[in-house]
Amino acid sequence: MSYNPSGYNYGAPPPSQPYYSTPYAAPSPYGQPQQPAFTSPYSYGTFTFPPGTDPNVIACFQVADIDRSGVVDDKELQIALSSYNQSFSIRTVRLLMHHFTNTNTRKIGPKEFTQVFYSLQNWRAIFEKFDRDRSGHIDTWELREALTSLGFTVSPVVLDLLVSKFDKTGGYKQAIEYDNFIECCLIVKGLTEKFKEKDTMYSGNATFTYEAFMLTVLPFLIV
Amino acid sequence: MSYNPSGYNYGAPPPSQPYYSTPYAAPSPYGQPQQPAFTSPYSYGTFTFPPGTDPNVIACFQVADIDRSGVVDDKELQIALSSYNQSFSIRTVRLLMHHFTNTNTRKIGPKEFTQVFYSLQNWRAIFEKFDRDRSGHIDTWELREALTSLGFTVSPVVLDLLVSKFDKTGGYKQAIEYDNFIECCLIVKGLTEKFKEKDTMYSGNATFTYEAFMLTVLPFLIV
Repeated sequence: MSYNPSGYNYGAPPPSQPYYSTPYAAPSPYGQPQQPAFTSPYSYGTFTFPPGTDPNVIACFQVADIDRSGVVDDKELQIALSSYNQSFSIRTVRLLMHHFTNTNTRKIGPKEFTQVFYSLQNWRAIFEKFDRDRSGHIDTWELREALTSLGFTVSPVVLDLLVSKFDKTGGYKQAIEYDNFIECCLIVKGLTEKFKEKDTMYSGNATFTYEAFMLTVLPFLIV
Repeated sequence: MSYNPSGYNYGAPPPSQPYYSTPYAAPSPYGQPQQPAFTSPYSYGTFTFPPGTDPNVIACFQVADIDRSGVVDDKELQIALSSYNQSFSIRTVRLLMHHFTNTNTRKIGPKEFTQVFYSLQNWRAIFEKFDRDRSGHIDTWELREALTSLGFTVSPVVLDLLVSKFDKTGGYKQAIEYDNFIECCLIVKGLTEKFKEKDTMYSGNATFTYEAFMLTVLPFLIV
């Protein structure tokens, strides 16, 4: 048991696995994108991908932006993400968009799309690392290990709460599918970051005014 | 404008409308229950309604408890609540059960059923008070007034967040239906009570450990 009940470790990446690295080959969460017929920097309407952007990211954005509006909305992102032989609920998609925009606009541009792309690539790799038999789901303890890989150490009680939400088998199997794993990551990462913002002294305690507390929590309920 | 931007008032009922009173005639949220063929105290399996319980409450419980198990589960409560010419989402029902049990068991006995009964009767009366044209929905400002009637003063920013979640018309009409009003009440009441538990000095600030913060927020996401 590597769980440390005497403290918590939120957000600090374990030394062996930096937060944004992909320690092994992982497939693109969008399948094999078509090769773009252009090179970056790529101007897309009034939005621009910065120089050096991976052409795969730009190509995926182009495919996702069905109406060529220059931004990808929640429905378009859901279609793009669901094309990789898996389903994404609209709630997960909106939570993803909220996480990277910190708004409820439900639209993302090139900058946020790039962040979504790399985060999902990383989370997919983590998920597949623990889904050892390629069953498409992980169990409770693998979820704990996966969250630890991402730098989030949660207590057994918190883990139980997460599993009670994200295990759709009714508890007999404790199997968390990829879509639910992503939602779980977004909630743990999002709440932890909000907590850290208020824990300015790194004391392990965060103080909220009533207004700040409501504005912190409500967006997670609202997507 | 009676909104007070300089402070907040959570949970304290306004003097004119005590929290659990029903200041005017309100229909039972269950329609007209059949008259029970017994008097309280009513023993129901291993559970008992205390002496003096309103026979209407006992009758409603008897109707709701379809499988005669002595407890009402989430599906049974959804059916019971939805029989009054309105729909209740399973999320609202589970949030309701969580609110009165503080657990995720999704079953309530006579004690919690009685609390649900009177709370819904009160909230129904508040809703109908502000739904002046009997359209079945209230607007943003009526929601603010309704929450104030319940003792919760929320800021315009919080109100906007609530409306963005509970207004299902896409924003053009700002109409909140009864089911969504109940969910809104449960979230505001629940989060406010959790905040108050940590604001032991009544300072307007609440301090959470990381564990307490996660255990406070996650149940609202989990139902």
